[in-house]
Amino acid sequence: MANPLIRDRDVDFLLYELLDAPKLCALDAFAEHSRETFDLYLQGTRRLAREVLYPAYRAMDAEPPRFADGAIKAHPLMKSIYPQMIALEIGAATRPREVGGQQLPLIVAALAHAYLMAANLSAYGYVGLSTGAAHLIEAFGSDELKRDFMAPLYRGDWTGTMALTEPQAGSSLADVKTRATPAGAHFLIKGSKIFISGGDHDLTENVVHLTLARIDGAPAGIKGVSLFAVPKRRREGGALIDNDVHVAGMIHKIGWRGLPSLAMEFGERDDCRGWLVGEPHRGIAHMFQMMNEARIMVGCNGVATASAAYHEALEYARVRPQGRPLGAKNPAAPQVPIIEHADVRRMLLRQKAIVEGGLALIAVTARFADLAAHGSHAAERRRAALLLDLLTPIAKSFPAEKGFESNALAVQVHGGYGYSSEFLPEAWLRDQKLNSIHEGTTTIQGLDLLGRKVIAEGGAPLALLREEIDAAIARAAAAGIDPAWCARLSAAIETLESLTQSLAQMGIAGAVEKMMSHSADYLELTSLVIVGWLWLRMAAVARAALERGAPDGDFYRGKLSAAQYFLATELPRVAHLAALCRDAEDSYVAIKPDWF
Amino acid sequence: MANPLIRDRDVDFLLYELLDAPKLCALDAFAEHSRETFDLYLQGTRRLAREVLYPAYRAMDAEPPRFADGAIKAHPLMKSIYPQMIALEIGAATRPREVGGQQLPLIVAALAHAYLMAANLSAYGYVGLSTGAAHLIEAFGSDELKRDFMAPLYRGDWTGTMALTEPQAGSSLADVKTRATPAGAHFLIKGSKIFISGGDHDLTENVVHLTLARIDGAPAGIKGVSLFAVPKRRREGGALIDNDVHVAGMIHKIGWRGLPSLAMEFGERDDCRGWLVGEPHRGIAHMFQMMNEARIMVGCNGVATASAAYHEALEYARVRPQGRPLGAKNPAAPQVPIIEHADVRRMLLRQKAIVEGGLALIAVTARFADLAAHGSHAAERRRAALLLDLLTPIAKSFPAEKGFESNALAVQVHGGYGYSSEFLPEAWLRDQKLNSIHEGTTTIQGLDLLGRKVIAEGGAPLALLREEIDAAIARAAAAGIDPAWCARLSAAIETLESLTQSLAQMGIAGAVEKMMSHSADYLELTSLVIVGWLWLRMAAVARAALERGAPDGDFYRGKLSAAQYFLATELPRVAHLAALCRDAEDSYVAIKPDWF
Repeated sequence: MANPLIRDRDVDFLLYELLDAPKLCALDAFAEHSRETFDLYLQGTRRLAREVLYPAYRAMDAEPPRFADGAIKAHPLMKSIYPQMIALEIGAATRPREVGGQQLPLIVAALAHAYLMAANLSAYGYVGLSTGAAHLIEAFGSDELKRDFMAPLYRGDWTGTMALTEPQAGSSLADVKTRATPAGAHFLIKGSKIFISGGDHDLTENVVHLTLARIDGAPAGIKGVSLFAVPKRRREGGALIDNDVHVAGMIHKIGWRGLPSLAMEFGERDDCRGWLVGEPHRGIAHMFQMMNEARIMVGCNGVATASAAYHEALEYARVRPQGRPLGAKNPAAPQVPIIEHADVRRMLLRQKAIVEGGLALIAVTARFADLAAHGSHAAERRRAALLLDLLTPIAKSFPAEKGFESNALAVQVHGGYGYSSEFLPEAWLRDQKLNSIHEGTTTIQGLDLLGRKVIAEGGAPLALLREEIDAAIARAAAAGIDPAWCARLSAAIETLESLTQSLAQMGIAGAVEKMMSHSADYLELTSLVIVGWLWLRMAAVARAALERGAPDGDFYRGKLSAAQYFLATELPRVAHLAALCRDAEDSYVAIKPDWF
Repeated sequence: MANPLIRDRDVDFLLYELLDAPKLCALDAFAEHSRETFDLYLQGTRRLAREVLYPAYRAMDAEPPRFADGAIKAHPLMKSIYPQMIALEIGAATRPREVGGQQLPLIVAALAHAYLMAANLSAYGYVGLSTGAAHLIEAFGSDELKRDFMAPLYRGDWTGTMALTEPQAGSSLADVKTRATPAGAHFLIKGSKIFISGGDHDLTENVVHLTLARIDGAPAGIKGVSLFAVPKRRREGGALIDNDVHVAGMIHKIGWRGLPSLAMEFGERDDCRGWLVGEPHRGIAHMFQMMNEARIMVGCNGVATASAAYHEALEYARVRPQGRPLGAKNPAAPQVPIIEHADVRRMLLRQKAIVEGGLALIAVTARFADLAAHGSHAAERRRAALLLDLLTPIAKSFPAEKGFESNALAVQVHGGYGYSSEFLPEAWLRDQKLNSIHEGTTTIQGLDLLGRKVIAEGGAPLALLREEIDAAIARAAAAGIDPAWCARLSAAIETLESLTQSLAQMGIAGAVEKMMSHSADYLELTSLVIVGWLWLRMAAVARAALERGAPDGDFYRGKLSAAQYFLATELPRVAHLAALCRDAEDSYVAIKPDWF
């Protein structure tokens, strides 16, 4: 059976049974849409993913882009893949009609694009990065910049990048050194960037780099960094001419091998022009306003990559005969498929709980993003925005961290064959590892969650989460879900609330380092509560469907099994993680560098 | 600073402070040895590892052996590396003088060889596999077989393999189909094998495959499988002639890329001769008698691979500047090395706890192997044998599973650079993944521990572990270790004991599937208790050293930090794992294949 990459039934369940996506069409922004237009879009991306992107995946993993004569050549297959993605207008799927978009809810676009990611992260990356770059110009750029840069990016005529990282700075964007010298309507840009994904290629005539740089005389630190649109080629006299942006080298990445990651030099000849996007010195603030969406999409990468591997492992376990049931007496009996072994089912159910829980996490977070932007009144938008802020670091990090574990299990289920590059699970394992690193490492997600998100507005985000969880528990109880499952979630959210208060007290008392010392544990703990909440919600829907005798009973029974697994196996870990945070266990705080 | 691969100070600590290896020299078997001979051997392997094997690692990872004209060519660097390993006589290091060995304790050989593994798993593999093959002949073969096959293997004139796995059988050795037809003094062998590590190469003139096959008419299942020595070339008339053993294909492995893993055909021309090793139909039993040592060595692979990556990450974190302390006010202040960030220290201390805890686990297990084989009286040997049997599945699986996590953290500490093949951590991550698969998957280790080891001899192994743990707690208390640390270990062993009784009761009551359903959780739980025990022992030694004002205080303080981390962060997870086992949480037991 062909790998579905993501199961359509799961997406339908999320959109139409769990989250009632068509209800969004009552909002002005989505009034032109309906379940029919959602499904049409999904059909297009599913088909493209399965028939075009996925068949090219192995070849693109095996043969990365080439760097020769100062330029990057993408894999030849991309020459036909790229226009087909553009034909579906995926780049501006969620953007408004007036900028050429389809004005789809993010929840629909994210799930639809998840198929493309599961099929071929690198191929999708060329478009996904362009969307991010164009969206920044849409939000903060002048009308001229929109015309000159945003429009060709959304049309797919050009592609875009985020040129943030510098060799000496890494995650520390406050230390960006690239310089921008005023020169009339533009600036002269000079500096080095690294890890620029899609920084050069031969698929389109131009690439626009959304570049962080420091205007001459700007203050040190985060408040002196500005954002610029810096094209590979600039328009002069109706022609595109070289803008002094050069590829200095290509990173040999271990995954995402179809998408080049480059070291780049801006302004070696002092002739690199950039145009300011938004206000001077507000570059990082502007970027962070778009960060939720970027991070949700990284989470989506993670879920998609785990999903492709899970479905591969599931099919393998169903068809690969090996061994016999425990205690079987007759050694001449035929071997059974390995899915018959309890520990193989454990590995599969764990993957299912991570993948389908992760997909629900992306869908719920995206739906809050839709409501935050387009809700019918200010209170609805504010509520959604607070929950979106809270959920984003989870949506970014849970799929990356647990997805990596899930991908490793897919390799393990394949046994010795999984250790071979003739099978795909090892490639997805390599791909997945990036998601805990780019767009803010997991460390940074933990600091963001505990240091900013949960303490925002007097703790309002967590109070709203509590409301959501209480409602979910009530619905689950009404649907006849085992009270023990509800009790576990109830205990977990209470633990999270009281822990957060304790930590906030530490912070208020000035012990900020102590408060923050277990930010990684706090992030994991919060992830467990949130994904546990989603599994309880899914279980309630599944139980209700079974009660009313819905067809497709096995599908719902599977949801209940995964919910049971997650709530029994993962959620109870909350107590121990909370103890570590609350006690501020100090082994790694106290250790000195020389003691290692 | 050059990567030490494994820190000498840690090895000295294990041999001379924690486990008093020289005391073994009071035993007849080791009477010729002393700390001086141990150190001499260690010096030789350390130097070879650092000066010869490690510098060749990257090249061997990048260019796997070549398969052409039916034969495998090893990496050219192996032509000089192999003889240098042989010159150190590492192949027979632990074997008796009468077979040409050095009669070293396994604890010394394992730690010494760990350097070679950390430097270059594949290079060491050529010799390590030969040792396993030769040892089987030493234990079960006739004098002729010892002369004809064992002797050249131990000398390193030839290399050996374990030819167990077949494409249709994998982990299920009961389903081996390779046939052995009696033909006088030898048998004619015919069948297909897969994943044969080191199955062919051009380093020596011959390769001897210790091969599982089924004698014509043998019963089905595990009790019909015999063990044979099957050379690539057999001796006839004083010359070595082709023995009809052929390479059918090379597996493209994702790690251990310097050592070929082959699909092989035996007897395509019906002219492949094999010689029976040991008794007919007892092949698997014979193999399992040697399994403890093979599995300890896989655990050693795992620790070594995690160690190399940990030391790389530690050095990187000490020198890589990025960001500033939490709450730093001056953005113009210089950046600090990332080891100054608490979450980076968390990732490093977690690696340290896994690596140094894992090395102690290997050392303790090897020491029990030494006593089981050479103890001064029967009771000492029996006690050690029971503990060895109990510890072996832990020594095999903990380094593989936690080592993989540790290797992933080493990548993470390197950030974007870690995701590049220009840095080594990603290569070690790939190498590590094999250790949860070969020599019995982690699933199989769990079934072995719970289904065989802990219930052996009326539960004697666990009672002995309890004795060891009680003694360790008493010593720790006397050394002034925090009583809370002791209390945690005490609670954990009690949980393990009472859980084991509950599970045994289930088994006795006939609910074997239920009893075994959480074998993976039981394995992890037992690992935590055992590694927790070792960390408490190490902490007691470190505390005592600090009390007496030993030099090298930072070294001991680091041990205390890692012990604190493991006992506070990992050991308490025992309670939750025990609950899952005891309640026989049934999500993945009850789920049907169609529900996924």
